[in-house]
Amino acid sequence: MNTLGKHIRLTSYGESHGAVIGAVLDGFPAGFKLDKSFIQNQLGRRKPGQSDIVTPRRESDEVIVNSGVFEGFTTGAPIHFQIQNNNAQPKDYSHLKEVYRPSHADYTYEVRYGHRDYRGGGRSSARITAGWVAGGALVQDYLAQKKGIEISAYVKQIQKVKLDTPARFYSIEEVDTNIVRCPNNEIAEQMITVIKQAQDNQDSLGGIIECVITGVPAGLGNPVFDKLNATLGHAMLSINAVKGFELGGGFEMTHKRGSEVNDAFEMKDGKPYTKTNFSGGIQGGISNGMDIVFRVAFKPTATIGSTQATINRDGESVSLKATGRHDPCVVPRAVPIVETLAALVLGDFTI
Amino acid sequence: MNTLGKHIRLTSYGESHGAVIGAVLDGFPAGFKLDKSFIQNQLGRRKPGQSDIVTPRRESDEVIVNSGVFEGFTTGAPIHFQIQNNNAQPKDYSHLKEVYRPSHADYTYEVRYGHRDYRGGGRSSARITAGWVAGGALVQDYLAQKKGIEISAYVKQIQKVKLDTPARFYSIEEVDTNIVRCPNNEIAEQMITVIKQAQDNQDSLGGIIECVITGVPAGLGNPVFDKLNATLGHAMLSINAVKGFELGGGFEMTHKRGSEVNDAFEMKDGKPYTKTNFSGGIQGGISNGMDIVFRVAFKPTATIGSTQATINRDGESVSLKATGRHDPCVVPRAVPIVETLAALVLGDFTI
Amino acid sequence: MNTLGKHIRLTSYGESHGAVIGAVLDGFPAGFKLDKSFIQNQLGRRKPGQSDIVTPRRESDEVIVNSGVFEGFTTGAPIHFQIQNNNAQPKDYSHLKEVYRPSHADYTYEVRYGHRDYRGGGRSSARITAGWVAGGALVQDYLAQKKGIEISAYVKQIQKVKLDTPARFYSIEEVDTNIVRCPNNEIAEQMITVIKQAQDNQDSLGGIIECVITGVPAGLGNPVFDKLNATLGHAMLSINAVKGFELGGGFEMTHKRGSEVNDAFEMKDGKPYTKTNFSGGIQGGISNGMDIVFRVAFKPTATIGSTQATINRDGESVSLKATGRHDPCVVPRAVPIVETLAALVLGDFTI
Amino acid sequence: MNTLGKHIRLTSYGESHGAVIGAVLDGFPAGFKLDKSFIQNQLGRRKPGQSDIVTPRRESDEVIVNSGVFEGFTTGAPIHFQIQNNNAQPKDYSHLKEVYRPSHADYTYEVRYGHRDYRGGGRSSARITAGWVAGGALVQDYLAQKKGIEISAYVKQIQKVKLDTPARFYSIEEVDTNIVRCPNNEIAEQMITVIKQAQDNQDSLGGIIECVITGVPAGLGNPVFDKLNATLGHAMLSINAVKGFELGGGFEMTHKRGSEVNDAFEMKDGKPYTKTNFSGGIQGGISNGMDIVFRVAFKPTATIGSTQATINRDGESVSLKATGRHDPCVVPRAVPIVETLAALVLGDFTI
Repeated sequence: MNTLGKHIRLTSYGESHGAVIGAVLDGFPAGFKLDKSFIQNQLGRRKPGQSDIVTPRRESDEVIVNSGVFEGFTTGAPIHFQIQNNNAQPKDYSHLKEVYRPSHADYTYEVRYGHRDYRGGGRSSARITAGWVAGGALVQDYLAQKKGIEISAYVKQIQKVKLDTPARFYSIEEVDTNIVRCPNNEIAEQMITVIKQAQDNQDSLGGIIECVITGVPAGLGNPVFDKLNATLGHAMLSINAVKGFELGGGFEMTHKRGSEVNDAFEMKDGKPYTKTNFSGGIQGGISNGMDIVFRVAFKPTATIGSTQATINRDGESVSLKATGRHDPCVVPRAVPIVETLAALVLGDFTI
Repeated sequence: MNTLGKHIRLTSYGESHGAVIGAVLDGFPAGFKLDKSFIQNQLGRRKPGQSDIVTPRRESDEVIVNSGVFEGFTTGAPIHFQIQNNNAQPKDYSHLKEVYRPSHADYTYEVRYGHRDYRGGGRSSARITAGWVAGGALVQDYLAQKKGIEISAYVKQIQKVKLDTPARFYSIEEVDTNIVRCPNNEIAEQMITVIKQAQDNQDSLGGIIECVITGVPAGLGNPVFDKLNATLGHAMLSINAVKGFELGGGFEMTHKRGSEVNDAFEMKDGKPYTKTNFSGGIQGGISNGMDIVFRVAFKPTATIGSTQATINRDGESVSLKATGRHDPCVVPRAVPIVETLAALVLGDFTI
Repeated sequence: MNTLGKHIRLTSYGESHGAVIGAVLDGFPAGFKLDKSFIQNQLGRRKPGQSDIVTPRRESDEVIVNSGVFEGFTTGAPIHFQIQNNNAQPKDYSHLKEVYRPSHADYTYEVRYGHRDYRGGGRSSARITAGWVAGGALVQDYLAQKKGIEISAYVKQIQKVKLDTPARFYSIEEVDTNIVRCPNNEIAEQMITVIKQAQDNQDSLGGIIECVITGVPAGLGNPVFDKLNATLGHAMLSINAVKGFELGGGFEMTHKRGSEVNDAFEMKDGKPYTKTNFSGGIQGGISNGMDIVFRVAFKPTATIGSTQATINRDGESVSLKATGRHDPCVVPRAVPIVETLAALVLGDFTI
Repeated sequence: MNTLGKHIRLTSYGESHGAVIGAVLDGFPAGFKLDKSFIQNQLGRRKPGQSDIVTPRRESDEVIVNSGVFEGFTTGAPIHFQIQNNNAQPKDYSHLKEVYRPSHADYTYEVRYGHRDYRGGGRSSARITAGWVAGGALVQDYLAQKKGIEISAYVKQIQKVKLDTPARFYSIEEVDTNIVRCPNNEIAEQMITVIKQAQDNQDSLGGIIECVITGVPAGLGNPVFDKLNATLGHAMLSINAVKGFELGGGFEMTHKRGSEVNDAFEMKDGKPYTKTNFSGGIQGGISNGMDIVFRVAFKPTATIGSTQATINRDGESVSLKATGRHDPCVVPRAVPIVETLAALVLGDFTI
């Protein structure tokens, strides 16, 4: 369904071209000062039109918080976040009514629901993640302020351009020094270049986001079916266009021998820590106090400008060419989505 | 917690060296003939001592089903599966009481719970997956008999030895033609060789299991937070030693352009199908009728025979050397675990 | 938390004097024509100011539905209902900031949350049930249109004035022939009289609502912890001011012998039915095809006009006298709340 | 389904005449010394054959705990309770195969599941509550030892014989001074007399259990759909034969005016308390620190020795006469069921 979490629960609603999108955050503690600027900043990092490598669709994505907060502080009651869809104009989407776009959810929603809102993807659009980001940003802020847990994601790879340094925590400021959100300006330049090339070629690219969570106390996570890594994976695999998730050493570890990747314990400042962190900060589903490190793989945007063959509802072959403008690569805009979903998961085990 | 699923719910209990391990399967439909031989076969594929590339620990893993079945047919009441731990002998495990084994869950369980069953990993041991397999095998059998949905997994890669052919469905019989469960005897031989080498070197290996689910109707899955892929990922990431999950094109797709990996729709036998299957059978979180294809990455077994440095509960440096015998590579035994967890997930959306 | 149901899930938000109240209904089937007039009618039966035996607070309670519906039909996506609080004026509620009103939730919210919205009860106000009614009314309409299940509640008792006829189904029209919602005008007159007397005496009354659900197929309900009666009871006990719930023969049955109240099976129109219905249509937690009959006990409204002794946050004795106008008896306005919550529960087992 | 609770979760399995009944308790804290004698004592209070006013069926109801406990202390892993059915003899139950007993669940299970275990009620039998009592007793012991929360229930009424004194806490010892579990020996004698009369007349009786929970801190409970009273009601309405639940003043309050039943706050020992307790210790769904008081109505046992008319599966009229021996009144044996379910609910909000 449309709810994530067990203790801190985010319920999402809305469609790409409906009047509004929103979310209800339940289970959030009382007495926390809601900092709207932090939330709005994360929404700004996600919103369309923020740079010339993303879709130029214009949305202000101003969030309204109209329950669960009193005199500036949360009350423990459900918090409602609402964002207006300014772009919900009476544009003609009838060309999408009948056609099944390749690698989109048009066909599967049609089978699953019969009656579907086809305007710009409707419920299956990544636009609805704005509601997730709003709710998750509040939790992210809480974790940082109250628990010393900081979450930061960055672009690790765009197509074949890769940041090939070990995972480490970068502040949001460090990540945002460039529009592609890779905390190395040289690599970032190359990423921007390949994205622009894809854009020029009416094509699209995917990539990898790496997320590092620091300040996590040891002991978070519930075996055996609410493991911290499984719950993080579940959340990340809920993001549009995500095709893979890996923790710590990930798929690369399959090429190694145990003696190469076992994380030996040592003491540091009177606390156990591990010399290496192939475990990605989680062992047996429970945090071990090291940085949590995971990566999320995004496929290339399904919407491309070049002509594609597909079928319509009657099973007839048709050709399709995306009009309008769209993201050549969603990865830079997905950075705050990864962070805020991670915050929701961590919050679920912490708060 | 210890329950997987919303409609078909498996609740697991037991420890590695407790008296029993077991599971309660709730929500399973009434009137299905329970085929114990199918379940026992899956347990046999998971059990220790089945070949000379796995741990020689001896367990018969005979399952007792003592509720929810009447006159051979399920009744809709919860089904209880119980397996005796024959190996629960009064062996001395006191050396594990104080030490934190590298890349095991000793330290994290200690922090999380304080009082822990240290015998052979206790609750964190992969032994408890026997209960999952028992319950999941019943669902796997049901899906095949009643829904025409067949699930089969096989070993895709052991360390650097890889089956480099496109994913396709193989029957359990095809997979089980060799002890490593790779449906290509030549590659399988190489895999067996590297496992034995690791064994000889007191070391361990990891690998990748690929799972293909065929006969899936279009329309399974619930956006946005119960996406079929997210729920599958959650289940797979719950398996011990798993560090990654990818669907369809997975991480490899991040290197491609949209025009290369978009799955064009065509008609086949009067039904939409896609020419390629980079989507892995799931679009927008809902099955599209193509084979579901995913891969699961297993790290090398954490327990190795060579000496490792670590610490004990008092923070003192100690050296550790696994006595007894253990799996040089868990991947072949994990094949039925992947299948049966996938069955539980599919069942959750189907039954 | 703030969500009711497992399959059809209603998530509630909002406060008495916040900007809005609302609800998200998740899991509702696609393709159903949303009849706003039915929903608005139920809201009208709940709203303040509808007659001279209820609070004269003025709220139009117009509901906005702004997601999950496309071209007039539901899409299977979450449906968002929103109602403006017109009465959210900057009135001075500071007298409620410090005082714990007797038999209200002021003290318990203070302890539970620390920071609370004290304006008019905030989150603990019965005003928030407007969101429940909106969502539940859609389900009630669906059950009637698609499943032939009709739900109707009526006032059975106000203080000592009691409708002493056997439970039976009355249409909403029959129930609404008078303002107290008792489907017997003579008894209704007496009820109105005692309510007005209480009003004149600055006092308040409680009463009993009886609900009859007809057209229920046999076989709804899930033993053993999702019994239909337990789930109905849970929902009803969630309504403000409710102190009791009973099914069929209820508490009265404790005075009888088994031979007097066992429901003998007979055949009618080729189907099993019971000669009597002390079971209230549910046996072993599952519907048996007879009318479901239950009763809900409401205590007298806690807010009264006469002076009461109580304490403030500092533990000092204070006297309290409700200013403004309030309900002398909430029971007539609670009728649609009972119906729509019952609809949510039935929907949860049906849809 | 068969799981109660969100944080402390009890999953039940088993049938009346299956090999075993049991329960898995998940979420229970680590490090608590399991006192089997407390659990066994509660099972003894529930078990058949304990006195001459209950069914003489013989069951030892010895519980085995075989997971989640290590060296006598809980580990945080799921705790498995198992009880052998000694009475699962190959007795002939074929007369129950075809007939629908009045006010039993035979018909509804038949419709719901098709294939049912008809032996002694199968899954619908109250025998399965033994598993609940085992798991709940552990929580009850924990609440008393660790939180100072004590739960005690007693028989308030059998048919028309009623203990007409205000609700108050009685220790288990006080309650168990007689076999009917009414803490007033004179009234108890009358209750025993009417039960024996019903027994002699081949008839059965019902009654009311009152439960008082003392030592509850203010602040337990989660509005709006996990109210403490609603969750307690849900649990109680899950017990076989229960037809009603009321909190504090309950149904009786509907006869009163607000000024008569509002609970005025005062200070006592530096803490707010209420002069009266019509609220039953819960306001707005949250505990207020006063004793929690509720009552549960049990209908007369459906199984009676006199001849009853009913139908069989083919819809033919048949007459039925219970052979064997059965409970003339289940209320005395239900006392520990009420207590242990209440413990599970309180534990869910506390632990």
